[in-house]
Amino acid sequence: MFITFEGLDFCGKSTQVKLLEKYFLEKNKEVILIREPGGTNISEKIRNILLDKKNKEMLIETELILFAASRSQLVGEVIIPALEKNKIVISDRFHDSSIAYQAFGRGIELNFVEELQRFVIGKAIPDITFFIDTPIDEIIKRKANVKKIDLDRIERSAIDFYEKVREGYLYLSKKEKRFCNINGLLSIEEIHKQILSKINLKV
Amino acid sequence: MFITFEGLDFCGKSTQVKLLEKYFLEKNKEVILIREPGGTNISEKIRNILLDKKNKEMLIETELILFAASRSQLVGEVIIPALEKNKIVISDRFHDSSIAYQAFGRGIELNFVEELQRFVIGKAIPDITFFIDTPIDEIIKRKANVKKIDLDRIERSAIDFYEKVREGYLYLSKKEKRFCNINGLLSIEEIHKQILSKINLKV
Repeated sequence: MFITFEGLDFCGKSTQVKLLEKYFLEKNKEVILIREPGGTNISEKIRNILLDKKNKEMLIETELILFAASRSQLVGEVIIPALEKNKIVISDRFHDSSIAYQAFGRGIELNFVEELQRFVIGKAIPDITFFIDTPIDEIIKRKANVKKIDLDRIERSAIDFYEKVREGYLYLSKKEKRFCNINGLLSIEEIHKQILSKINLKV
Repeated sequence: MFITFEGLDFCGKSTQVKLLEKYFLEKNKEVILIREPGGTNISEKIRNILLDKKNKEMLIETELILFAASRSQLVGEVIIPALEKNKIVISDRFHDSSIAYQAFGRGIELNFVEELQRFVIGKAIPDITFFIDTPIDEIIKRKANVKKIDLDRIERSAIDFYEKVREGYLYLSKKEKRFCNINGLLSIEEIHKQILSKINLKV
């Protein structure tokens, strides 16, 4: 089974990824946790280029393609072999993030971003994708808190960007049957419970 | 003016690139020579990943996408700004190489490789592309000579690969008006003369 988690930064998905991993491990299942970009030798080298703050001149098109290159290697080297061995693969973000962030958020042509993802993931299509939908004012509050900045110093452009990315996720959730939207304002335990009940329906 | 050179390895194009650069420099033109992959800080970092012999596990899909990422940055940072300043840009290989080598040579789906190149090069479409068409038995002879290996030790698979790549170039040359095929068996001086006469028709 291949499970992905999506949502805005600070939506709470990483906490849910860890809880779900723990749940499977306690049931003695083999679980592989994926973090993007990265996860193979080559993908980690690509990650270094993507995250190096010195590379300020990186074009949004180059960024999109580098994420795809890292993902391509991860799919072929890790995800497909794990799924073939009946392991459970959980990914904190996957190809849907490129569609939401790069196409909707940054404005790169949607058709191409979708075509690129189709090529890159091949058969590694998630069985279920949890979209933790946390309202943007709550995201902004959490971000201000974690980054220790005043709420009113968060720029309007950041809020606009999040709104566009959320629109991308809503587009995907209408289009893709594998999408499962979860209210990000619920408690951690309640969200975990909803995720488990969805997964147990699939098994 | 944007001029690209294409052809099999050892077809003689690098010699022609240098002769053409010299010709323009003697006419006091501003010329920029491009080498792929590379040519910007970020593209050189991508080049290091592509050429590092330790990365043996690199998938052909990842390789295709990394070439595209390097090219994307080169187009935006170097080629487009140079063309806007009316400089002459000469590239030893460009996007056609991905179509010939990765789609025809390696068998990656042609439609996607073409779509990827369209996205990556944007407005940086070459005005003229010289395809130096050198017969494969001559290529093999030159390769054996340069690499100091016996002619009969060159593997059949290498010859098959070159045949497929050449087929890719012939496909492009039928499709693209900017293609200019040149017989690679002519002398260096004769090829240079033909290139100049084609360019002078364009100016």
